[in-house]
Amino acid sequence: MIGYGFMGKAHSNAWRQVSHFFPLKARVEMHTICGRNRAHVEAARAQLGWQLAATDWKEVVESPLIDIVDVCTSNVSHTEIAIAAARAGKQVLCEKPLALNVADAEKMIAAARKTNVKNMVVFNYRRVPAIAFAKQIIESGQLGQIRHFRGTYLQDWIADPKFPMNWRLRKEAAGSGSHGDLNAHLVDTARFLVGDIAEVVGLQETFIGERPKEAAAVGLTAAAGKGIEKVTVDDATAFLARFVPSKNVAAGAYATVEATRLAPGHKNYNRWEINGTEGSIGFCFERMNELEYCNRNDPADKPGFKTIMVTEGCHPYFGAWWPPGHVIGYEHTFIHTVADFVNAIATNGALHADFVDGAKCVAVLEAVVKSVKAGKWVKVANIK
Amino acid sequence: MIGYGFMGKAHSNAWRQVSHFFPLKARVEMHTICGRNRAHVEAARAQLGWQLAATDWKEVVESPLIDIVDVCTSNVSHTEIAIAAARAGKQVLCEKPLALNVADAEKMIAAARKTNVKNMVVFNYRRVPAIAFAKQIIESGQLGQIRHFRGTYLQDWIADPKFPMNWRLRKEAAGSGSHGDLNAHLVDTARFLVGDIAEVVGLQETFIGERPKEAAAVGLTAAAGKGIEKVTVDDATAFLARFVPSKNVAAGAYATVEATRLAPGHKNYNRWEINGTEGSIGFCFERMNELEYCNRNDPADKPGFKTIMVTEGCHPYFGAWWPPGHVIGYEHTFIHTVADFVNAIATNGALHADFVDGAKCVAVLEAVVKSVKAGKWVKVANIK
Amino acid sequence: MIGYGFMGKAHSNAWRQVSHFFPLKARVEMHTICGRNRAHVEAARAQLGWQLAATDWKEVVESPLIDIVDVCTSNVSHTEIAIAAARAGKQVLCEKPLALNVADAEKMIAAARKTNVKNMVVFNYRRVPAIAFAKQIIESGQLGQIRHFRGTYLQDWIADPKFPMNWRLRKEAAGSGSHGDLNAHLVDTARFLVGDIAEVVGLQETFIGERPKEAAAVGLTAAAGKGIEKVTVDDATAFLARFVPSKNVAAGAYATVEATRLAPGHKNYNRWEINGTEGSIGFCFERMNELEYCNRNDPADKPGFKTIMVTEGCHPYFGAWWPPGHVIGYEHTFIHTVADFVNAIATNGALHADFVDGAKCVAVLEAVVKSVKAGKWVKVANIK
Amino acid sequence: MIGYGFMGKAHSNAWRQVSHFFPLKARVEMHTICGRNRAHVEAARAQLGWQLAATDWKEVVESPLIDIVDVCTSNVSHTEIAIAAARAGKQVLCEKPLALNVADAEKMIAAARKTNVKNMVVFNYRRVPAIAFAKQIIESGQLGQIRHFRGTYLQDWIADPKFPMNWRLRKEAAGSGSHGDLNAHLVDTARFLVGDIAEVVGLQETFIGERPKEAAAVGLTAAAGKGIEKVTVDDATAFLARFVPSKNVAAGAYATVEATRLAPGHKNYNRWEINGTEGSIGFCFERMNELEYCNRNDPADKPGFKTIMVTEGCHPYFGAWWPPGHVIGYEHTFIHTVADFVNAIATNGALHADFVDGAKCVAVLEAVVKSVKAGKWVKVANIK
Repeated sequence: MIGYGFMGKAHSNAWRQVSHFFPLKARVEMHTICGRNRAHVEAARAQLGWQLAATDWKEVVESPLIDIVDVCTSNVSHTEIAIAAARAGKQVLCEKPLALNVADAEKMIAAARKTNVKNMVVFNYRRVPAIAFAKQIIESGQLGQIRHFRGTYLQDWIADPKFPMNWRLRKEAAGSGSHGDLNAHLVDTARFLVGDIAEVVGLQETFIGERPKEAAAVGLTAAAGKGIEKVTVDDATAFLARFVPSKNVAAGAYATVEATRLAPGHKNYNRWEINGTEGSIGFCFERMNELEYCNRNDPADKPGFKTIMVTEGCHPYFGAWWPPGHVIGYEHTFIHTVADFVNAIATNGALHADFVDGAKCVAVLEAVVKSVKAGKWVKVANIK
Repeated sequence: MIGYGFMGKAHSNAWRQVSHFFPLKARVEMHTICGRNRAHVEAARAQLGWQLAATDWKEVVESPLIDIVDVCTSNVSHTEIAIAAARAGKQVLCEKPLALNVADAEKMIAAARKTNVKNMVVFNYRRVPAIAFAKQIIESGQLGQIRHFRGTYLQDWIADPKFPMNWRLRKEAAGSGSHGDLNAHLVDTARFLVGDIAEVVGLQETFIGERPKEAAAVGLTAAAGKGIEKVTVDDATAFLARFVPSKNVAAGAYATVEATRLAPGHKNYNRWEINGTEGSIGFCFERMNELEYCNRNDPADKPGFKTIMVTEGCHPYFGAWWPPGHVIGYEHTFIHTVADFVNAIATNGALHADFVDGAKCVAVLEAVVKSVKAGKWVKVANIK
Repeated sequence: MIGYGFMGKAHSNAWRQVSHFFPLKARVEMHTICGRNRAHVEAARAQLGWQLAATDWKEVVESPLIDIVDVCTSNVSHTEIAIAAARAGKQVLCEKPLALNVADAEKMIAAARKTNVKNMVVFNYRRVPAIAFAKQIIESGQLGQIRHFRGTYLQDWIADPKFPMNWRLRKEAAGSGSHGDLNAHLVDTARFLVGDIAEVVGLQETFIGERPKEAAAVGLTAAAGKGIEKVTVDDATAFLARFVPSKNVAAGAYATVEATRLAPGHKNYNRWEINGTEGSIGFCFERMNELEYCNRNDPADKPGFKTIMVTEGCHPYFGAWWPPGHVIGYEHTFIHTVADFVNAIATNGALHADFVDGAKCVAVLEAVVKSVKAGKWVKVANIK
Repeated sequence: MIGYGFMGKAHSNAWRQVSHFFPLKARVEMHTICGRNRAHVEAARAQLGWQLAATDWKEVVESPLIDIVDVCTSNVSHTEIAIAAARAGKQVLCEKPLALNVADAEKMIAAARKTNVKNMVVFNYRRVPAIAFAKQIIESGQLGQIRHFRGTYLQDWIADPKFPMNWRLRKEAAGSGSHGDLNAHLVDTARFLVGDIAEVVGLQETFIGERPKEAAAVGLTAAAGKGIEKVTVDDATAFLARFVPSKNVAAGAYATVEATRLAPGHKNYNRWEINGTEGSIGFCFERMNELEYCNRNDPADKPGFKTIMVTEGCHPYFGAWWPPGHVIGYEHTFIHTVADFVNAIATNGALHADFVDGAKCVAVLEAVVKSVKAGKWVKVANIK
């Protein structure tokens, strides 16, 4: 694993836990964790349960002792590391967003194709049981043809203008702000549950243009008197999109999508609703064990949404955990992801989201940015 | 009152009830109800509590016995009737949308200005106690500067493709579909609570292009074998908008707005949320007695939204009704509207929403339609 | 109508409105309103829409011009007035609780039987559309056999110990506090939806034993320096109950019931849930247009509660009002009650809740009080 | 660890995970798991991450290699194993309910006192962050004096009468049904957040008196033709209780408590609300990351409950996990429990819930059962 920040912690937990809950078709060994700072990575190794720590990711990626490379670094380095790993014949798991632009993403696809390695981008929300269950409902035709996707991803962690800078607020490290961080998830969910997006038009805004420089190490205790720094990413991005029609997607189907980090009161409000000809489903991550479901063909005196606890043994992934109603959380989505990844490698099976999915998501995000500049609708690039 | 359909019923109830609950500064007499069909209007007169019934609106509008004209006809005739009433020196109350286009709306404004009559467009949701209370919160600066308005108006009454045609689905009578019917409300709420809208970009769709012809009288029992008719209005319209910055509106503030009549499970889901620098408020008409409120400056361990029952004696309008928690409904919004209208006339006081507000709403709707055709952002026309 | 307080206002509104929305089988005339204070009753007459005002209820009750007597006085006088009205051959509508004790209630039944007049006690919640719909669901067997009724009625209007005395806090006027005011509703709902109650055990508490004397007229502005007064009713009462088994009620079925006026944050939180062998329903008055419904036989992957907006034309009473999702409120329950009462008189039809229902409710309340004193289970008296 | 069923899985996970998230003051080694069936325990060892497997709990409990004994067996054997462990000088963690009766529980206390070992009963819900936070709110006086505790624990896993027998439905193994399984949690929560219970009166019911015999190994696939077996525990138990008054508990404070496994639609609906003189808090386990909070002293125009996501770094335990809004689940409550247990041992610090807490809970449960037989209020036994 390369990287040991927030995502490194989540991925490490997944690797540690997966074999205790899921029947894997291969044995997982947590070999090496890699980061630039020797002391920090050693501490992470001990804390997160890895055997070895390293500081040179190139060595790690090429080590013959390693089969899988898990890329958890900041967004800007995904491309270089993933390509190197693929070239070295490693199976590659990469955090989202896959890359900062379509061109980079396509290079990653090409590298993975060339050595024919399994490649996966961690859109962890695909494996929330409720979302995986929504996918089943849609695939089986229970919603009929989809007409609307309505997604908002609302947070408030930088609503305080005194909240200091960090890498997520710098374009050179993060690529973008709410758009790449949060809309990336909504776009992937829309693509996963509905289908490909053809064209978009959007807007972006940075409301808080400068912030206190970040204190030495990290965090919330902004050092007074240390000056300010310009914020170079978006606080909020909203767009409209048209889907490509298909079997389950009506001609004219569209999406409304919005992400903001400036919505007081919302912590991780990744909420969406889908309306089809035969019914609707809704979801909000803050209540991730629930799915709202409406069947338009219910008796006329009983219309409405049912709140389903997606915690039954028959629901995707949940059978591995606890009895109904004994809820799971955020970290479990990574465990489910890793389980599927390992089994796909062991059986040479299909997997999702792969690098093509990752690239398609980047293409949508990129088209939105272009539409903001152009002030008009922009077609989403095809991924080769 | 001209017209006796759904809105005629709601307005009549308001006129009947208002003096029993609100201290009016003038005595209200329900003089004449007017409609084209003699038998129907006579039945409506008896049912709705009017003294007289008439079939010629021009006579009514010019009658010296009448002070106020309440226009409840289908959208297409608002302009002609309201102008005639204003010319005759009557105080004019008009259902929304004020007109089918900005040009017509401006003629209405001009007519009302010329004779200096009070003029009001019935955006009844302004007087839901929770929304009037939201206005107070915003005006007093409790949300700080607003950055986001997020509105959706979702219904499903025509989700069944066998639901037959009616006037609301014909462009010549209704002007538009979900856009003029539902987005009109969201636009007015956005203008009322936030402020003027500068530019927009949107999309529209008619998913169900043809429907069974309407059965003789009304309704849901589509006559088999009577053929089909083309639907000439939109089923759904979504758009992005930029606000004009002001004291309570941040530079860059924007709105996302969507209306659809094809969202299974939603009946009258007029829901919006506003995020400001200092807090957030949310509302959904289906739970119209509640307001969700978040104060960003609450203690750090107690973030989140409070669900306020807006049913206290200190809340707008509610003191006239029942004890706290004894909820009111849809029809009350019209009673509040009529109370304010009568008192504004009696005291020559200010009122809202006036025809200028109505016209500004039409201008936004019209700009959206233009943007759909142009495929790009369009500026909203100034109202003279 | 005798009385013009809170209930007088609600009943008057019902009488005024009913014929505009419901097809009545008799013409309603609002003849006389009666109260002890001449000036007050005259003001009420004008405000509430009655033709005449009177101060001597005995005269009114015996007037040959009057067919129906509606008793809205404070609890202590229900018995005397209703009996006089029945003796005079009037149809009698009486606010709840029917009487302060079973003995009085039985006298009222006897009087009504003797002159064979229609008699009804206003348990208005029976005619919330959602509750009437719940009744249909249960009657049709959709819940199977009921095992649990779980009711709480929570308010907070006297949670402030500085809130002054009023008649509702004096035993001689009100009979009891939360028990007769709020538990009366829960008991009636339990009886209406489930069935008769066989035995009970409970507790009662007056947490705030004395309060400021009430200011001259009424209200919340306690006059300083006027001293304090002892509260002689309960603030809170809770009890367990066993139902009489029947076709739709399982052997062993029980209820938990609690009312309090000291639950901060709750305004009119009349909430209950019923669990049967085949499903569950839940309701809360603060969201009175909604019913929560669970069908145990739904597909295994879709368990849970559906939130039904009980606002369809096919739902009880709602067809008279507005389109789906255009919600109604507290006052409508009285309009529905009056409509059914008038039509039952005009057609000599059955009605509920009649004085026997009222007496059975009183019997349950009385048994609870006895059980509190006895510290053990007490059987509910049979009503003759 | 003795036992490897549902609780064994949850506890093992806690032991595996705790050191990766919490700074422990001692190193944890997962030494031996013990069960009666050699093959099963060996499979559990491998799956759950233990070093050794054993079949004789007495040997394990006395092994000098072991410092802590974690008792996860079925309820009936808690007493014997815990006493043996205490006698051997081991620190003892025991699943709830501590014992089947007060007499047994007191023996356990005595054994632990004699060797002065740390002893803890796993009331895991105490360490849901939202509940630990509720404790802070109450302790700091923010609710004032508590008057009401209103708890229901609703499940539906045996609502189907065809659901077969298992050990939880046999008195000799489980001691009781919904009462010891679910009410035990509510009683402990009431004691933890409010205080000791003085007396109770209750009812119990077994609605489904016999069930299909359980299939060989497990589960839901009841073997046809294998006959039926009598259910010997309660399906539902409800009771009223009076608290012992104290600094934060008003004189007259009471609880209503109900558990049932026959409430269709509810999976793990462990819900309670507390009302104090100055505010209220509410919680439901199915939404365990949320706490509802009402401050009675909020501005008069903003009454109501706030929904707090208890996922901030400043909230109890949550700082060890993920960013705000990235929710945790059921299993985390055990990790928190184990962390506190280990640190209390390492530092010889205080801990809760200890065996005295466990015994007091058993005493309340036992008093309820006595009250059911007696048909009257029963005092809760003092724990020596």
